[in-house]
Amino acid sequence: MSAQVIPLPRKEPSLAPILSLTATAMNAVNAVILDRMQSEIPLIPALAGHLISGGGKRMRPMLTLAGAELIGYQGTRHHKLAAAVEFIHTATLLHDDVVDGSDMRRGKAAANIIFGNPATVLVGDFLFTRSFELMVEDGSLKVLKILSNASSVISEGEVDQLTAQRQIETSEERYLSIISSKTAALFAAASRIAAVVAERGEAEEQALDDYGRNLGIAFQLVDDALDYSSDTAEMGKDRGDDFREGKMTLPVILAYARGTEEERNFWRAAIAGHRTSDADLAHAVELIQSHDAVNATRERARHFAQRAIDALSIFPATKAREAMVEAAQFAVSRGY
Amino acid sequence: MSAQVIPLPRKEPSLAPILSLTATAMNAVNAVILDRMQSEIPLIPALAGHLISGGGKRMRPMLTLAGAELIGYQGTRHHKLAAAVEFIHTATLLHDDVVDGSDMRRGKAAANIIFGNPATVLVGDFLFTRSFELMVEDGSLKVLKILSNASSVISEGEVDQLTAQRQIETSEERYLSIISSKTAALFAAASRIAAVVAERGEAEEQALDDYGRNLGIAFQLVDDALDYSSDTAEMGKDRGDDFREGKMTLPVILAYARGTEEERNFWRAAIAGHRTSDADLAHAVELIQSHDAVNATRERARHFAQRAIDALSIFPATKAREAMVEAAQFAVSRGY
Repeated sequence: MSAQVIPLPRKEPSLAPILSLTATAMNAVNAVILDRMQSEIPLIPALAGHLISGGGKRMRPMLTLAGAELIGYQGTRHHKLAAAVEFIHTATLLHDDVVDGSDMRRGKAAANIIFGNPATVLVGDFLFTRSFELMVEDGSLKVLKILSNASSVISEGEVDQLTAQRQIETSEERYLSIISSKTAALFAAASRIAAVVAERGEAEEQALDDYGRNLGIAFQLVDDALDYSSDTAEMGKDRGDDFREGKMTLPVILAYARGTEEERNFWRAAIAGHRTSDADLAHAVELIQSHDAVNATRERARHFAQRAIDALSIFPATKAREAMVEAAQFAVSRGY
Repeated sequence: MSAQVIPLPRKEPSLAPILSLTATAMNAVNAVILDRMQSEIPLIPALAGHLISGGGKRMRPMLTLAGAELIGYQGTRHHKLAAAVEFIHTATLLHDDVVDGSDMRRGKAAANIIFGNPATVLVGDFLFTRSFELMVEDGSLKVLKILSNASSVISEGEVDQLTAQRQIETSEERYLSIISSKTAALFAAASRIAAVVAERGEAEEQALDDYGRNLGIAFQLVDDALDYSSDTAEMGKDRGDDFREGKMTLPVILAYARGTEEERNFWRAAIAGHRTSDADLAHAVELIQSHDAVNATRERARHFAQRAIDALSIFPATKAREAMVEAAQFAVSRGY
């Protein structure tokens, strides 16, 4: 089953401008990443490299780099810090895959499948400690505070998500709180530190933080929508993973809220783990479509993306700002 | 089977003096630990509290506190930092229990058994991030560097240990390198930071680092010896865990090195995981005893404990120094 393609009235938004804006600096960041994931223990670069060289959009370090372009920062301190941000994210992905028992990540077998859970947990820890070493080398206590706090909020969000799993009564508010912690906190911190290293004022810091945070929420909302509307190739993970894991994402929350009593009985059983066949997934997608819950999720995403875009209004209208605006539009439109 | 008790020619060394030396400050550290393991997500304090309130010797924060007493530090900064050290250690224990599939820890069911692997991994991450938040609050980049580096070395050591698991050819040198990383690095860092917050010179820092590092090696050696000589109650973990997990600890390395070809065949099969019955464990203990490998391991520990003690010689002969000397003697004698 695939969503009907409705042509948008304007040109398709794309990541191309932000990718081009940050391409040179991203090469420097990638060099730091490759250098700092090394270790004398061969399993470490083997496992870390499996995930890191396996692609991924490098969205979070890209936010640091784009923010630096936006405010005209001339130095190079943000390269190491952007690498630190990506290491935090990579550590989180490795631990997520263990926690979820994932089979696939970024279109190939997940690290836990190839290397086992023990190695995946421990190399995640390693990348996390490397990330802190990079921050300490930079030496800004303000950056350290922002990123250590974000890391703490992320792990609280991960535990909160685990607690909400298989809980059909999870509300939209609780869901928003979870994705604000587990996803948006790092988007916000990654953006904010660009203004910190450039020693701009609090207003610029806050604007970048707001941009990143709202973009992160929009991004996660669309990811969660795509799990009920896209195919494996598009997501690089198994479609229906959220469904089978009993994750209470917004499409399910809305379909349940808008459903008949009979439909709610289906959702209760499904989220409890008693409906996991392909036919059950197809039925779930059908219910979600019938209540327009994927589109409603995208609409919520559009709201946050618009807030992200408006947060940039304090900056002059440069090519950098245009690229960041288009990145936020892309976050909502992708997969359509 | 239990080791024959040989009365020592002097009074039994004990932790009592170092416990008494650090008791008041440890109350302050425990208050920080209890306060900072809280979260609005109830699962976090529930899981963290299961391990943290489950006892444990608080050896690592005790080293920070004893070091501060030794050099006459008057402030309170080390309370938060000692709590940070304990959080790093607690995070490591939680992840270790997932990696090893442990059943017991500190004499009761391990967190992974009660709360499951996913929650245990994520709450470990949470405690780790909290530890960094505490260090950042303290604000010393020097302390941050020491503890972030130690954390990174620990996780490399954990991966290295995993790589050596079930590898019968692991040498004593490789084993020493692993325990230096996974255990002694945090003992060293915990001791060293006492001199850093007190702003003493490099000589005092290095002496405390040497004390902690050698003590840590001695401690781990004796832990590994006890797994082949003590019962469950004494260790708070299942006797024979190392054997069944195919861990190459020194008693096995020595019994294998000193063994006949027939014995070596047994060890090859056992470490590969093909000899896991109680009778196999009894046979392993027998072989280890017949080659005096537990005593040899204790002798190695005595060597490192002596180096720890001698590192303290640059400090005046105070009650604090006596207590730290006796702690090192205790590390070797415990379980006899």
